Amino acid sequence: MGLIDPDRLRVSFEEYSSIGATDRDGLHRLALSEADGRVRDRFVDDLQELGLSVRIDELGNVFGRRPGTEDLAPVLIGSHLDSQPKGGRYDGQLGVLSALETLRILEDEGIETARPIEIVNWTNEEGARFKPALTGSGTYVGTHDLDTVLAETDDEGTTVAEALEEIGYRGTDPVGPDEVPNAALELHIEQGPRLEEAGHTIGVVEGVLGMAWLEATIRGNADHAGPSPMHTRSDALVAAADVVTAVRRMAGRLDDDVVTTVGELSVEPDSVNVIPAETTFTVDVRSYDDEVVLDAVDRVDDELRAACDREGTEYDLTELWRIPHTEFAPSVADAIEAAADGSDHPSMRMISGAGHDASYLAELTDAAMIFVPSVDGQTHNEREFTEWNDVVAGAEVFARTTRRLASADGADGGNP
Amino acid sequence: MGLIDPDRLRVSFEEYSSIGATDRDGLHRLALSEADGRVRDRFVDDLQELGLSVRIDELGNVFGRRPGTEDLAPVLIGSHLDSQPKGGRYDGQLGVLSALETLRILEDEGIETARPIEIVNWTNEEGARFKPALTGSGTYVGTHDLDTVLAETDDEGTTVAEALEEIGYRGTDPVGPDEVPNAALELHIEQGPRLEEAGHTIGVVEGVLGMAWLEATIRGNADHAGPSPMHTRSDALVAAADVVTAVRRMAGRLDDDVVTTVGELSVEPDSVNVIPAETTFTVDVRSYDDEVVLDAVDRVDDELRAACDREGTEYDLTELWRIPHTEFAPSVADAIEAAADGSDHPSMRMISGAGHDASYLAELTDAAMIFVPSVDGQTHNEREFTEWNDVVAGAEVFARTTRRLASADGADGGNP
Repeated sequence: MGLIDPDRLRVSFEEYSSIGATDRDGLHRLALSEADGRVRDRFVDDLQELGLSVRIDELGNVFGRRPGTEDLAPVLIGSHLDSQPKGGRYDGQLGVLSALETLRILEDEGIETARPIEIVNWTNEEGARFKPALTGSGTYVGTHDLDTVLAETDDEGTTVAEALEEIGYRGTDPVGPDEVPNAALELHIEQGPRLEEAGHTIGVVEGVLGMAWLEATIRGNADHAGPSPMHTRSDALVAAADVVTAVRRMAGRLDDDVVTTVGELSVEPDSVNVIPAETTFTVDVRSYDDEVVLDAVDRVDDELRAACDREGTEYDLTELWRIPHTEFAPSVADAIEAAADGSDHPSMRMISGAGHDASYLAELTDAAMIFVPSVDGQTHNEREFTEWNDVVAGAEVFARTTRRLASADGADGGNP
Repeated sequence: MGLIDPDRLRVSFEEYSSIGATDRDGLHRLALSEADGRVRDRFVDDLQELGLSVRIDELGNVFGRRPGTEDLAPVLIGSHLDSQPKGGRYDGQLGVLSALETLRILEDEGIETARPIEIVNWTNEEGARFKPALTGSGTYVGTHDLDTVLAETDDEGTTVAEALEEIGYRGTDPVGPDEVPNAALELHIEQGPRLEEAGHTIGVVEGVLGMAWLEATIRGNADHAGPSPMHTRSDALVAAADVVTAVRRMAGRLDDDVVTTVGELSVEPDSVNVIPAETTFTVDVRSYDDEVVLDAVDRVDDELRAACDREGTEYDLTELWRIPHTEFAPSVADAIEAAADGSDHPSMRMISGAGHDASYLAELTDAAMIFVPSVDGQTHNEREFTEWNDVVAGAEVFARTTRRLASADGADGGNP
């Protein structure tokens, strides 16, 4: 199999990026928005031009199937075309376009594969307009309930079902695999700085961190900031500050791969001359070791108790959700590594800090991911950027890996 | 002069409290609201019933004047009838009703005073609906500009001028003293715990803390909470937590009377899985020593710099406003103390942590305040409470002090 066509990939990238483009080279293409409708139309046109049979399921997931030469389960490739609000052009889109370029090069070169290859664009990966994130893939593997998901609303009260109708993507196919794929592969930007720091082009993603989301509420007394001597105060924000500091320090003490973040924090009554009566904040804990995540949850509780004892405040701690780590299939990771070696692109094994559609697919079949570097680790904003050479390298490794996975025995078909 | 009439005071207190009452024995009577209009009508009726000449200025400050026997400058007594949102029944109202009871007992007993006595209800002391607080008294003494104040809007865009028209209190008298008062006296609840802690009934308020309000903004990077290793982070909230902790600790290090508070804090983008990119928070610093306030402002800047150096974040620090401490007139404080001694109510000298209308009047004339205890220091909420015995004691000392101030030589006219 030859190299991919970088110029054709570039043209597609620019054209797709023009749909929902922001003034600053970003992308504002919320799930099931008018812009998402237009980019889907373009995607379907491209699939049909390749002669693929296109199907759209009830949740708007779009599939294109290229037949194989044998009666075998397909290989599923792709990612998502929706974006964060004023997000970047690489997140998701690059995975769909690498898959598209892979099918084009196979077609160009008249290469048949033993297994069918299905390309997919998943609905609402980002979770920015509708909760939860990973809606399409999560429902496909059976984790989310279709009716519940269709009834979810955005800030304006529009349901997923209505938004699908509006852009013409309320398909009729049942959501879920008619045939369980033999393997799933997704290319994505890293969204972190590790590849760039290590000077590697290709990340062979072996798994995804486990995660817990916690919400803590601390309650003190809303006294007047002037006449209340310091010794009489029970300040919910002072107690929360202790916990924010402890959460930061906790990561380093538990394990090297642990990340801990307080992302949301609000104060009541939030008035310059009133001592904070209530603070609510979230804690995001991630580790590849699920026991470490559990340990961190316990420690957050310990820190809350200590801070509240000190300050005379009270607290509640709620676990919003917790998911174990994902282990991707060694067979698929090995295939990626072999493809990277074959293309002379330096690769490294790594763990993803963020969840992806491939995390759900791993519940169903052998899955893994290819990461390409994110400059400065930037993501979910208009400064998100990946060097074009790295994009091409990633797409090349992706195409080689796909062909390897689509062979009857999982071996590469050789490099013509 | 005899004791005041506690039953009459109680009836007035209950009747006034019914105007804008909340379900939980609190008061929701925002400045220039319909409820404020009704309580003003009641107040004006009460003044007229006493035969006082009533005048209303362009800012809605309501005055009632009882003539003196000599051609001398008047004594100004009173407070405010507006409340915080779902505030308490004692804050402000108690000062107006103590002044009203004082005039009633003088009238009852046919006591004439050498100096005229003016009772006042100041417009918008709280600053809850319209900024700034202390609007009426601050404009009266010339600190605020009348046209600017009249053009201030509430959250609905209603101006002070429009709100005054709506309730019929856009008076015609110029704002400011036609004759500078010889002294000013205000009774208020302490809004702090010191009197209760000390077991005293009467606070002789000798001054008000100086104050600075600061606003700090810290800017970091909004990276994804999953794929961003701890060492790459510049977390605006972690840096802010350091400063919140330092501000708390600072009070104890600077001086015993210093109070420091972070009351407002907000986080951007405020998302559970995004590292905070920006945090904005306020710092309220108060001390009787203006140099200590200045020192504290410098230290907040030092702490911000240190926290931002540590975290790789940047910051801005703005001084929203700063006012020096207020020294009340020893002559008026002595008069209060003498009246308390004469009534056998245990008193203590103290400094107010909060600003009051009397703080502005101190710029114009000899002023001081009487504090009565706040149970648990509660204020600005429906749990605000003062024991009725303490209310009566305060009103009694207030009446005696007023009579003393209204004598030609400032001495008490004796206790008939």
